[in-house]
Amino acid sequence: MQRTRVAFQGARGAFSEQACKQILAGRRFELAPYEKFFDVFCALRDGRVHRAVIPVENTLHGSVHENYDHLLDFNLAILAETHVRIVHNLIARPGATLDRITRAISHPVALAQCVEFFRRHPGILVESHYDTGGSVKTVMEGSDDTLGAVASSAAADYYGASIIEASIEDDPENYTRFFLLGPQGDSEGAPSGPRKTSMVFVTKNIPGALFKCLSAFALRDIGLTKIESRPLKGRPFEYLFYVDVLASPEETNCANAMRHLEEMTEFLTVMGTYAPAAIGSSDPTPADTKAAGEAG
Amino acid sequence: MQRTRVAFQGARGAFSEQACKQILAGRRFELAPYEKFFDVFCALRDGRVHRAVIPVENTLHGSVHENYDHLLDFNLAILAETHVRIVHNLIARPGATLDRITRAISHPVALAQCVEFFRRHPGILVESHYDTGGSVKTVMEGSDDTLGAVASSAAADYYGASIIEASIEDDPENYTRFFLLGPQGDSEGAPSGPRKTSMVFVTKNIPGALFKCLSAFALRDIGLTKIESRPLKGRPFEYLFYVDVLASPEETNCANAMRHLEEMTEFLTVMGTYAPAAIGSSDPTPADTKAAGEAG
Repeated sequence: MQRTRVAFQGARGAFSEQACKQILAGRRFELAPYEKFFDVFCALRDGRVHRAVIPVENTLHGSVHENYDHLLDFNLAILAETHVRIVHNLIARPGATLDRITRAISHPVALAQCVEFFRRHPGILVESHYDTGGSVKTVMEGSDDTLGAVASSAAADYYGASIIEASIEDDPENYTRFFLLGPQGDSEGAPSGPRKTSMVFVTKNIPGALFKCLSAFALRDIGLTKIESRPLKGRPFEYLFYVDVLASPEETNCANAMRHLEEMTEFLTVMGTYAPAAIGSSDPTPADTKAAGEAG
Repeated sequence: MQRTRVAFQGARGAFSEQACKQILAGRRFELAPYEKFFDVFCALRDGRVHRAVIPVENTLHGSVHENYDHLLDFNLAILAETHVRIVHNLIARPGATLDRITRAISHPVALAQCVEFFRRHPGILVESHYDTGGSVKTVMEGSDDTLGAVASSAAADYYGASIIEASIEDDPENYTRFFLLGPQGDSEGAPSGPRKTSMVFVTKNIPGALFKCLSAFALRDIGLTKIESRPLKGRPFEYLFYVDVLASPEETNCANAMRHLEEMTEFLTVMGTYAPAAIGSSDPTPADTKAAGEAG
């Protein structure tokens, strides 16, 4: 059987890699890391990978708007979602000790989530790096025992580095939501149990337009779990709305709601229907993974 | 009469400076530039300035979420809004010519808005800088005629630089919305004509909560011009909603709507009521401005 080839953004050991392991638990897959989200979407569109895993929302920082924009532009299907609990660790070369660390590197978002720890350790200078996993790679490529990285335990494992201080994040309620994407028409597993549907629409230019659009779901007791607005290009101060509801268009009630919504929108597209993830879902089941670069 | 002291983020010649000139047209004021948005909010809270001008939304890139978060945390009042048309220019030292420019610096958002121009001029390498106005400052401090900056014409004027190519932005429908902030209780001008009100709320945990909240306005024919969701800290996958409506709580209809909304929210605060800006409003009226740094 062919392994599933999965694109993600970042270096090996990035939180996106952990998301791949959770969302494809028990499956045979190989990882294809890309530097930019745009490249991840291109790889899937062009058939160089079978699946892509992308972050769409963090519970402290909000939505990853770039990826919402790509979701609209690339016309791919959302096949599944997962929530990854973000645990940051101070990581260094084996043998290094906390009292000797004078500089720590990581992605700026990760550093911003560990402000309290660095306030308690004012002797450590923090510095931006392109990626959490990549910061561990940088530490391990050098020979500097005063240099630390902030990243996941998976990154420490992958590069053979040591965790100097575990769980240094300020807020434990720190989760990132990831989507598994595939080509339109693909599906992932059997559609049993509750379903969530993600869509994007532009309202007609009528009074109370958004309220009327939401009525399609509210009047049918379909719960809305998220709404996100994005600017509509070329129409200043008008918006696209990304909406998630707890239902599937395969259910009559939801199909009626979608038809009702269509009456009030000038553009509507369903991006995918999938099983809703629990918050704090699942440590990754050990999976049969193999590193694979663009050339791999 | 004391000059109004106005904080903004960026170097002199930044688009925020143009926003100050538009929003305070005809008034005597002096500018206090700060490096970070957080510092701008602190300066106003601590009484070091009388007013602050901050960007909240761009028609291509969406909301400036950091500032929405600060608006909630600092409890300041929105006193006015304005829309600045974003026109980017390639700027260099006097005497420099387009065919000799090999490198251009600017804020990454500005560079991202001029992709077509740089695609037509592949000989120019683009490089990130901390600020649009600051990139012109950097160009003028050096003596390199092959270095360009991407910034406003105000920045070229302020630093005595030359515009090598005007209006190089990809999309002319590029506006940034700015707020004028002041201490709670202050007001700006007489409240005649139409009004806009900005508020932020958290819905109660009831089915169809957002729909019910929007009904407070829709059922009273009050138009909603914007809705923005932000994560609620400590409650994963729950949200704060920032909403703008075309009405003032001083009108009975809107006061009723706010009271109705209060029944359905567990938190509600009005951030300000002000005159709505037209799109593409107003070139700045020449104003009596004077530079003033932190020490000025």
